[in-house]
Amino acid sequence: MLFRQLFDAESSTYTYLLADPATREAVLIDPVLEQVERDLRLLTELGLKLTVVMETHVHADHITSAGLLRARTGAQVMASPRGAPCVDRQLVHGDQVRVGGLELRVLETPGHTDDSLSFLCDGRLFTGDALLVRGTGRTDFQNGDSGQLYDSITRELFTLPDATELYPGHDYAGFTASSVGEEKRHNPRLAGKSREDFITFMNERRIPPPRKLDVAVPANRACGLDPEPLSPSSA
Amino acid sequence: MLFRQLFDAESSTYTYLLADPATREAVLIDPVLEQVERDLRLLTELGLKLTVVMETHVHADHITSAGLLRARTGAQVMASPRGAPCVDRQLVHGDQVRVGGLELRVLETPGHTDDSLSFLCDGRLFTGDALLVRGTGRTDFQNGDSGQLYDSITRELFTLPDATELYPGHDYAGFTASSVGEEKRHNPRLAGKSREDFITFMNERRIPPPRKLDVAVPANRACGLDPEPLSPSSA
Repeated sequence: MLFRQLFDAESSTYTYLLADPATREAVLIDPVLEQVERDLRLLTELGLKLTVVMETHVHADHITSAGLLRARTGAQVMASPRGAPCVDRQLVHGDQVRVGGLELRVLETPGHTDDSLSFLCDGRLFTGDALLVRGTGRTDFQNGDSGQLYDSITRELFTLPDATELYPGHDYAGFTASSVGEEKRHNPRLAGKSREDFITFMNERRIPPPRKLDVAVPANRACGLDPEPLSPSSA
Repeated sequence: MLFRQLFDAESSTYTYLLADPATREAVLIDPVLEQVERDLRLLTELGLKLTVVMETHVHADHITSAGLLRARTGAQVMASPRGAPCVDRQLVHGDQVRVGGLELRVLETPGHTDDSLSFLCDGRLFTGDALLVRGTGRTDFQNGDSGQLYDSITRELFTLPDATELYPGHDYAGFTASSVGEEKRHNPRLAGKSREDFITFMNERRIPPPRKLDVAVPANRACGLDPEPLSPSSA
């Protein structure tokens, strides 16, 4: 598999490029609007054809480039039926997405948002904002639910093999990856913590809402193509 | 091999952790002072013993944590004889550094600075600031030399197999990695460019000196342990 992790420094968002080196078909997970030219150029340079864009959820902290990528490449956009209505294919638990010879398995991991998905491909797990390196997504907006997030992590993600490589949707401390076993042992919100502990911790956090919440959520429900958020003043 | 890429957002510096999963011995390449607690904690959590710290060169844009790491872990600090005099072992072209069962091969790749080294380990190439993703290090201070940098890249790095994974010392555009073949084909300063083209391009650039040049270079020549740069006001 051709694999590349990409970063948007402004929103600390990771985008992932996976491709089949034989067929040259590629998928982008969680691409960022401001990086669309970088990402299209990289696809061209690597001789790849973007066929699929997958969203882990409707993001509140950045705007997706999914709609623009679809317009420029013909790629199919995929996300949860609880997420953006603009997609070409709705993904539910257990679905398989084929990209050339690659198979991405869909795991529903709600709790950060009600539409949160994780994707598993060849020993690599893409967790969006459900599980971060030594952290988790927040649960205080977009139908977030701390108990549900705890269940998603402990009953879905933590039942995967310990060696599964974990690639988060964001990082703010300079980590690029982890593993399932590592987070089971060392994630301070989860290691040795009960469901109740987790809910209490999450509910007691007092953090300001994401700066882009009001702009990003409606824009992302339109796959980033809402004309308003695309203007320089609001993007 | 256990491998982890780490990022310091303030200086856009990548630090690399490589370890032998059998013996648990580990090496850090280009660790950053401000991240020393993160890195020590990660080593502890992963059950690793830091035995070696390698510097690609005397950095001008951040201060190394090599000296602190040596004091805290007993690790040996290694760099070029043209670099910091505080090291435990001086590395020259062709040297092999053993870390458990891992072997890191030393390549002298001067030009960004006169002490610049690259390290090769199991198909992964760590280039420091010699070769960056779609860029190169600058050559306008610390005995930098554009012609020498062109030679280092084209005669040393570009003679490695195309599939060699390339891990840079910095990135400012959200790239985490590339490959030798990719940079040969798509690095705008090098692909299809002569030595003369490269020298002309580098000499015509007008960019301000690194913000930390005056502080970082003397501090790094003392492995980051100079008391002055360690004070909060100047670090």
